[in-house]
Amino acid sequence: MTPRMVTLYDTTLRDGAQGEGITFSLEDKLVLARKLDALGVHYIEGGCPHPASPKEVEFFRAARTRLRLSHARLAAFGSTRRKGRTADRDEGLKALLDAHTPVVAIFGKSWDLHVTEVLRTTREENLAMIAESVRVLKRAGREVIYDAEHFFDGYRSDPAYAVATLEAAAEAGADWVVLCDTNGGALPGAVREIVTAVKRRLTAPLGIHTHNDGECAVANSLVAVEAGATQVQGTINGYGERCGNANLCSVIPGLKLKLGIPCVTDAQLGQLRSMSLFVSELATKPPRDEMPYVGASAFAHKAGVHVDAMGKTAKAYEHVSPEVVGNRRRVLVSDMSGGATVRWKAEGYGLKLEKGDERGRRILAELKRLEAEGYHFEGAEASFELLVARVTKGLKAPFELLDFRVAVDKKPGGPSVSEATLKVKVGDQVEHTVAEGDGPVNALDSALRKALGRFYPQLKSMHLTDYRVRVINPQAATAAKVRVTIETTDGTDIWSTLGVSENIIEASWQALADSVAYKLLKGKSRKR
Amino acid sequence: MTPRMVTLYDTTLRDGAQGEGITFSLEDKLVLARKLDALGVHYIEGGCPHPASPKEVEFFRAARTRLRLSHARLAAFGSTRRKGRTADRDEGLKALLDAHTPVVAIFGKSWDLHVTEVLRTTREENLAMIAESVRVLKRAGREVIYDAEHFFDGYRSDPAYAVATLEAAAEAGADWVVLCDTNGGALPGAVREIVTAVKRRLTAPLGIHTHNDGECAVANSLVAVEAGATQVQGTINGYGERCGNANLCSVIPGLKLKLGIPCVTDAQLGQLRSMSLFVSELATKPPRDEMPYVGASAFAHKAGVHVDAMGKTAKAYEHVSPEVVGNRRRVLVSDMSGGATVRWKAEGYGLKLEKGDERGRRILAELKRLEAEGYHFEGAEASFELLVARVTKGLKAPFELLDFRVAVDKKPGGPSVSEATLKVKVGDQVEHTVAEGDGPVNALDSALRKALGRFYPQLKSMHLTDYRVRVINPQAATAAKVRVTIETTDGTDIWSTLGVSENIIEASWQALADSVAYKLLKGKSRKR
Repeated sequence: MTPRMVTLYDTTLRDGAQGEGITFSLEDKLVLARKLDALGVHYIEGGCPHPASPKEVEFFRAARTRLRLSHARLAAFGSTRRKGRTADRDEGLKALLDAHTPVVAIFGKSWDLHVTEVLRTTREENLAMIAESVRVLKRAGREVIYDAEHFFDGYRSDPAYAVATLEAAAEAGADWVVLCDTNGGALPGAVREIVTAVKRRLTAPLGIHTHNDGECAVANSLVAVEAGATQVQGTINGYGERCGNANLCSVIPGLKLKLGIPCVTDAQLGQLRSMSLFVSELATKPPRDEMPYVGASAFAHKAGVHVDAMGKTAKAYEHVSPEVVGNRRRVLVSDMSGGATVRWKAEGYGLKLEKGDERGRRILAELKRLEAEGYHFEGAEASFELLVARVTKGLKAPFELLDFRVAVDKKPGGPSVSEATLKVKVGDQVEHTVAEGDGPVNALDSALRKALGRFYPQLKSMHLTDYRVRVINPQAATAAKVRVTIETTDGTDIWSTLGVSENIIEASWQALADSVAYKLLKGKSRKR
Repeated sequence: MTPRMVTLYDTTLRDGAQGEGITFSLEDKLVLARKLDALGVHYIEGGCPHPASPKEVEFFRAARTRLRLSHARLAAFGSTRRKGRTADRDEGLKALLDAHTPVVAIFGKSWDLHVTEVLRTTREENLAMIAESVRVLKRAGREVIYDAEHFFDGYRSDPAYAVATLEAAAEAGADWVVLCDTNGGALPGAVREIVTAVKRRLTAPLGIHTHNDGECAVANSLVAVEAGATQVQGTINGYGERCGNANLCSVIPGLKLKLGIPCVTDAQLGQLRSMSLFVSELATKPPRDEMPYVGASAFAHKAGVHVDAMGKTAKAYEHVSPEVVGNRRRVLVSDMSGGATVRWKAEGYGLKLEKGDERGRRILAELKRLEAEGYHFEGAEASFELLVARVTKGLKAPFELLDFRVAVDKKPGGPSVSEATLKVKVGDQVEHTVAEGDGPVNALDSALRKALGRFYPQLKSMHLTDYRVRVINPQAATAAKVRVTIETTDGTDIWSTLGVSENIIEASWQALADSVAYKLLKGKSRKR
């Protein structure tokens, strides 16, 4: 019964944004949609373009001009028409059409309890709402995905009526009928039985949309596919309302590696871990190390007996190869782990290190020392390349800091004023500059550029494109250590650098100084 | 096929401690064992009392005098005898008996790959190792639990041999035969089939032990029970090697509430959330808010349509009642909120708003305005309560800021020095203070406390417990807006406040000022 192909429907931008503490800006959403397209998902649900949510409406407007998807189809999400209205004149359906997406997804009620208690209408009117809404959207030429909300609860309560709601959608022309476990409490046994029963009754392609309230969302999705569903809806990292949605980072490898369904290419699967990290960064949720497939601990071995066996045969304690999902094997509490990584990295910088090379050991020692202090070079490769150059070639800084002072003045009723003064020495010349900025770091950045511009005109092409702050030990409150990571571009390349300190200004300074040093290092190696 | 009773086997102390970053002291283990006993688990696996692990041996020694369990049975964990040895004289088995526990669990190999590649012995010798080891332990009067490591992989590779290993254990007298998905990659469909097949072959009671590498550990456990397994092994919070073990915090309510198996009492189930928090504290892992059943977000509603429906019938968007597992319902405020959310929240603050109340509309308008600027009240409920009080009661600030100046001085080779000067007015009195700190925000916090201490001595009990920074529009780089959220406690309550600005100092200031205002507001409402 397992189908040969399954389409992936991502709802990170809509259901994912319902997760506690998660909010995406318009720019976040555009960037994320492009990434999802590259990952190979087939549908991207962008949000609810309802007049009451101007931010969402604006996203779809921006998408029309700024979003070129190579593969995925964009979907707008909404509900069936309101009770007692005409579908043609329904404000919500009109807004869905005004979003001008190739795909529209609407949800409707399958659970009699919701029809009578929440909608407070009749069972017949509910069927009419579903059918007429689908028909209006189909008539406008949209691909229509019908989400049967609370389907599994509805089926348990009144199977005949629940199936009738699906039939109403299918007969009206819905391209997909999606069975939703909206409350997330269904168990895999029930999901298998119910999907199997529905599959016998309906010819329309079936989708599955699960939530994780019983910690079964991924399992329920895979079980539904084994029972014949050909679309899986979910979110990156499983973000979503309450306990979240089916985690596509587990669903995708489950489908491809376990059920043999080629829903994405091998190359796309290899991006999975970086996709997960990207979305967790965007959502400002710390990555969950223990996340299956993509977490930092997913292939980390600690038990002595496991580590020993891994030396004999890798699959002894690994269900799949970490590389397949862009992850890597780690051995915990072992100084030998990392040596190979350092050699591999160094080779990328044009430095060939043999096993046992003293320089490799020195890089590793410095790396471990800094990581223990809170540096985290995974997101700041340029700083790591500088570290390697400093340790192996004695690379010197392109300027010497004599001192800086950053001051923020606040008067009530006005904005704060930030000013930075900076003294640096390049060769034997001292530059002393002052600059204002939108905040203390911006002021410091401006003062540094002013000071160095005369010596290094090539820095003019540089500008920062990203600035991230992470508190490393939040329990220390305002005395906590922070890690600042910045991303810089010169129009040709993009690079990331970092700094760590109890003082956010100091941490930002380290990242700024590294960014300049890297630009100049790169210029040098190009001349060679 | 679903059994009427299932026993719970907790391995938090052993497998849980294999999780990355987790370590339990001897005292931790004793405390945790007592808590597990109170929770109602039937078996507690204490660790591996092997001579090579003196800490573990010591735990079992201490347990004999200091651990009085009212209900649970303590288990020592180890492996079958070594190849080519006599079970009677095997050092490992002897150590297991020396632990003097009523129960001993041993693991052995079911996967031919492991027999030949890892053990490097013959299939016959492996069967002898299993049978003889079980026999020695039974002869010594122990309840014996046999863990068939890698059983599902072994069954796929050679079903006849995999089952033969179980039969060897059962015939030698094992009280339980536990099917382990050691690599954690099995899917529920396969688990159901394989457990069903084994159940037909074996009369010994079956257990299930799963890992979460495919994000199916809980589902696989429940599916195995539906297929006839009568023991489930797992850990609190799902802690464990790599991606962790089956999470008992989801397994227990799944069994009791969904499959109707009374594995713990109602009162014990009601302790589940506090048990989860207790173990996360002990493991020094931050609690995962989105954890099913027990997480802070598990019953948190954000989508306006959900909140509206919840007002009509609670089970509209909840699969079980939060109180049943010791959790509670929460309603989150965000730019997606509508009137229903605002009314719900206001009622919690003692302000009854009818639908259509002008004040409700004003709160909502202010909320949306601020959220559009980057405020995000979901993680800062105290700031939202202040907003409501300002809008509806004209709440005034407890002090007036006249000005502040924060300066950071950096000389190379030394740490940065941060100093804040602050002038505030309380009533008609002006306070002017200065303080240093570990960073600019810490200095500002100190100066503010100095200034207000004389007027509001109750602020002395306050201290910050968390400080988070999120860049809202990272693409604007160092000119980006940041959102600062802080968490404060006075020893009795914990509250969160926030600030937003292009200037991180200004944003931090807003959050600090709100935190003080909230503490004073709370004091006032208590007096009433």
